[in-house]
Amino acid sequence: MKIVECIPNISEGRDKKKIESIIKKARGIPGVYLLDVYTGKSTNRTVITLAGSPKSIKEAIYKIFKKTSELVDMSKHKGAHPRIGAVDVCPFIPVKNITMKECIDISKFVGEKVAEELGIPVYLYGESARVEKRKNLTNIRKGGYEGLREKLKKPEWKPDFGKAEFNEKSGASVIGARDFLIAFNINLNTKDKDLAGAIAGRIRKSRTLEGIKAIGWYIEELGCAQVSTNVMNFKTTPLYILFEKVKKEAKKLSIEVTGSELVGLIPEKALLETGKFYLSWNLLNSEISKSRIIDAAVSELGLSDKCEFDPEEKILEYKIKKEIL
Amino acid sequence: MKIVECIPNISEGRDKKKIESIIKKARGIPGVYLLDVYTGKSTNRTVITLAGSPKSIKEAIYKIFKKTSELVDMSKHKGAHPRIGAVDVCPFIPVKNITMKECIDISKFVGEKVAEELGIPVYLYGESARVEKRKNLTNIRKGGYEGLREKLKKPEWKPDFGKAEFNEKSGASVIGARDFLIAFNINLNTKDKDLAGAIAGRIRKSRTLEGIKAIGWYIEELGCAQVSTNVMNFKTTPLYILFEKVKKEAKKLSIEVTGSELVGLIPEKALLETGKFYLSWNLLNSEISKSRIIDAAVSELGLSDKCEFDPEEKILEYKIKKEIL
Repeated sequence: MKIVECIPNISEGRDKKKIESIIKKARGIPGVYLLDVYTGKSTNRTVITLAGSPKSIKEAIYKIFKKTSELVDMSKHKGAHPRIGAVDVCPFIPVKNITMKECIDISKFVGEKVAEELGIPVYLYGESARVEKRKNLTNIRKGGYEGLREKLKKPEWKPDFGKAEFNEKSGASVIGARDFLIAFNINLNTKDKDLAGAIAGRIRKSRTLEGIKAIGWYIEELGCAQVSTNVMNFKTTPLYILFEKVKKEAKKLSIEVTGSELVGLIPEKALLETGKFYLSWNLLNSEISKSRIIDAAVSELGLSDKCEFDPEEKILEYKIKKEIL
Repeated sequence: MKIVECIPNISEGRDKKKIESIIKKARGIPGVYLLDVYTGKSTNRTVITLAGSPKSIKEAIYKIFKKTSELVDMSKHKGAHPRIGAVDVCPFIPVKNITMKECIDISKFVGEKVAEELGIPVYLYGESARVEKRKNLTNIRKGGYEGLREKLKKPEWKPDFGKAEFNEKSGASVIGARDFLIAFNINLNTKDKDLAGAIAGRIRKSRTLEGIKAIGWYIEELGCAQVSTNVMNFKTTPLYILFEKVKKEAKKLSIEVTGSELVGLIPEKALLETGKFYLSWNLLNSEISKSRIIDAAVSELGLSDKCEFDPEEKILEYKIKKEIL
């Protein structure tokens, strides 16, 4: 059984009725599973995580595109998240028994249909991109919806599907295949988005953090600024490395990290390695007794292999204290 | 209260009466504390760890030199450990309220007295060395007692104290001040000293192990070959790094490390860092449940900071299993 994941990011995070109408389009289709819905008021954006067979997902995502183009009017959209269209971005991710190539094919099929039937300019990104510059979503989205009318006039920004004509209501959509990524937002004890932005800048420039996207914003409904990140490859840059770096950078600005949130889902492995790191870290920083630690050393080194090892007799400081002081 | 440590290495490890007579010389002196005695039959060597005030230690060590020169006859000595004389080597180590400079002065005082009154050629080593080449004990001891007669004829091996004349009964003594070192022998499940020697060679050549001396030998009374090491600076190369490296090298030769032993004393810190490493290592390799690890990650990242985090809902694999499979 082939499973593809599909995560349409919709530029509507405030009108619950509209959001529910859009999601409902996917719910009814056999073989489509709604895994997660993340709605943000300040970002005015909803991230829908769907999974299912390629055939059913193709059907569901087209219906979501269609309904969104009817209900969302980009000319009236405001929100903290960068965006270029009503279905702003829609990645397809291989989950089970499916290749990246098949996901690329799905993305092209959907892109072509959306462009032709709904009149929305479509850019292919990620693994589906036809030119290097379009691999990176940030490049395509640069200038946002507000800059799209001018962007479309430039020959190098001719869409992959559809005409180079500005669709005022729907904007443009960015569609493609990619590997799983973790959308991870880190909460700060400040409302100042510039402080979050400063930390995000440091994170982007850090040489030790590979494949991390980061921006800073203020999320009114949470009452705090966030460093919003995408972790492109958690094997290269584990979550705890990023999290500890943000904590460190926050401290430099006299603010603090209070917690975090995930947008969508996270692979088990990413949480397991992070949990192991912190368990070990906490162990080493805990009030564990010296004698327990020394017992562990003696046991692991096998210091009692051939004859007994008595810490009171063999540890320099203990012996000196006992004999001399 | 100034405390200096002094560790005479005596070339007698078999005749208990002789060893006891030598040690007795230190016991009687007020202000001298006998911290450890390590006797090896196969090495035919006894390592005595003394500590005390500079004045009392000077008195004790001279008496040990004198008694050893009476009881030990190097022309009849055989043993697995490299050696050049009856009191083969005698380091002075600063322990408390005492500088390295003061230890150097003590070593020179003792060296001069031993050479003049007992007629034993004395080389200064470690921090007391007057030329670069004599800093390293291995250089001075090269050729051993058996090569000493010829060595003394070479101008570059003129002793620091005493005449360049071979003392057949006592050989030569190497005296000096140095920092603490850890004498750490690693047991193998083989009697083959060549295998231990091969591992020791790898250890000496390893670029990741700084400041480690290593030789291989067979210790009859333990029934096993050992990689015998000196760890010159356990802050640069922690014990567990060395131990794990020896385990790895042993495995390559299809043998195994069964345990280890210390000669003399070890600073508490060296065992604490080793214990912490193994506690953490064991934790991460234990049958600790996934849910406990994930709980730790969720808690440390503060994923429930603003709204609840339910692993069943947010972890990709769990959600797919629950919804689709």
